[in-house]
Amino acid sequence: MTFTGHLGFTGAPLDRADNLRRDEAAIQALRMDPTARFLILEELKPLMAEGGKDLYWARRSEVPRGTTIFLGLTPEGDPRFAVDGKADDDIPGTATDARVAGTVLGDARAAIVAQARSMLDWHRRHGFCANCGAPTEIQKAGYSRLCGGCGAEHFPRVDPVVIMLAEREGKALVGRGPRFPAGFFSALAGFVEPGESLEEAVARELFEEAGVRAHGVRLGASQPWPFPSSLMMGAFAAADSFDLKLDESEISEARWVTRDEVRAALNGQADWNAPPPLAIAHWLLATWAGVEG
Amino acid sequence: MTFTGHLGFTGAPLDRADNLRRDEAAIQALRMDPTARFLILEELKPLMAEGGKDLYWARRSEVPRGTTIFLGLTPEGDPRFAVDGKADDDIPGTATDARVAGTVLGDARAAIVAQARSMLDWHRRHGFCANCGAPTEIQKAGYSRLCGGCGAEHFPRVDPVVIMLAEREGKALVGRGPRFPAGFFSALAGFVEPGESLEEAVARELFEEAGVRAHGVRLGASQPWPFPSSLMMGAFAAADSFDLKLDESEISEARWVTRDEVRAALNGQADWNAPPPLAIAHWLLATWAGVEG
Repeated sequence: MTFTGHLGFTGAPLDRADNLRRDEAAIQALRMDPTARFLILEELKPLMAEGGKDLYWARRSEVPRGTTIFLGLTPEGDPRFAVDGKADDDIPGTATDARVAGTVLGDARAAIVAQARSMLDWHRRHGFCANCGAPTEIQKAGYSRLCGGCGAEHFPRVDPVVIMLAEREGKALVGRGPRFPAGFFSALAGFVEPGESLEEAVARELFEEAGVRAHGVRLGASQPWPFPSSLMMGAFAAADSFDLKLDESEISEARWVTRDEVRAALNGQADWNAPPPLAIAHWLLATWAGVEG
Repeated sequence: MTFTGHLGFTGAPLDRADNLRRDEAAIQALRMDPTARFLILEELKPLMAEGGKDLYWARRSEVPRGTTIFLGLTPEGDPRFAVDGKADDDIPGTATDARVAGTVLGDARAAIVAQARSMLDWHRRHGFCANCGAPTEIQKAGYSRLCGGCGAEHFPRVDPVVIMLAEREGKALVGRGPRFPAGFFSALAGFVEPGESLEEAVARELFEEAGVRAHGVRLGASQPWPFPSSLMMGAFAAADSFDLKLDESEISEARWVTRDEVRAALNGQADWNAPPPLAIAHWLLATWAGVEG
């Protein structure tokens, strides 16, 4: 595989230091540490610093009340947290859509946005126990919620998704969903279901969405996608024929494209738009087309 | 990769026919179809037929009341369902631990057990809405639950797990957890967290559990593991040194083993026991050691 460009939201620069999460006193001490910094997310939008080129890391005195999770330690050992809240008006940070932040940051710092956004979103939507309906409480520095009713412990959710290029005789399959922007095509994708492997999910989704039977699934790379908390698994598969039968609730149009056509689209010189570098679909297409990253 | 043995719980012989799930009348018609058969799970244990070599597929007249999910269609188009309930005493089937069933079946039929067990377990533990605490109702043939309070829709959970062999100079790292059976060693493993890629999760877990820094993660194969609903992603990684620093809450003992030692263990001729063929850890070890499947 040729393409070596940065895969969006990857690169995790922090040590998550999971061994500390159970030690409430240690986490509290880290929160009070003078080197502690906090990423504030307003309605799940991280604060970017003035100029919009970097995250805004708030000091403890600047932090609003709200769900707080431990992100990890910098290489220097300085603690980092994320907080779900509304920053004071005098704080020089701007709440920024996480996709925009991921694109602007363009490097490992975006992985912090992914971690913070997925975790805080999960807490927002998991205040109650799915097992008995009673309220749950945050614990373990944010990596678990405990039910006060039945005692069930709940963990943050990560939803595996397969995203794949079916290929045949020098052509790859791209499609567009009914709600995609005009002219935008991407790799087909779908959630992995209980009781199937990734390889099976790739074959099932290609058949369900496009009527394409495929074999020889090869896993390529993966990427977190924090909307809200997917794990995107990029794969390639060999299609058994070019025949398409679209499920139009999922795919309104699909086409087989050549490597030249993919390179043109990635350069903005085709009659269709390829996914942006933030998305693993870009990596799939660039890797398949042999583009240097 | 050499090993070609069957990966436990994979092979999905049914067409999940997800396009039918939203069509309540179609699903109801399939339930009433004379070719419909039902896999009954008692306390999440699938019924095996007399002799214990195959699943027991009940007719509609034999089916107890209980949560019912649509599994899919056979290649002949016959519908298959799974039911969470207690079978009548006169039904000639025996509730069997799903691990035992997976081992005895040893082929694609085990994938049905994985699908049924994960799905029914999820329904058991998700009768209430995590967002608001109100009761939820099963819908879409079992592939979703709808909250009667806030209207949130909830989907079955699949938890991605990385399981990996760190390798260095012809040796691979195996370890044992504090609760493993005596003499049993396996590949290290851990849950993928929100906001990280699989590759990052592999590196993080190797460092957290064994103090091993690694790079060059290669994804190999995957397997569903229905206890309750994991997706096991098998990987290899290049370790930067042999030095170990164990997190003894996770790993009580670890060792670097050669390919000869792995082959001996897989043949039951070593002073340690390797994982059984049902588990992807077996595939990882056999693949790494070059064993013919």
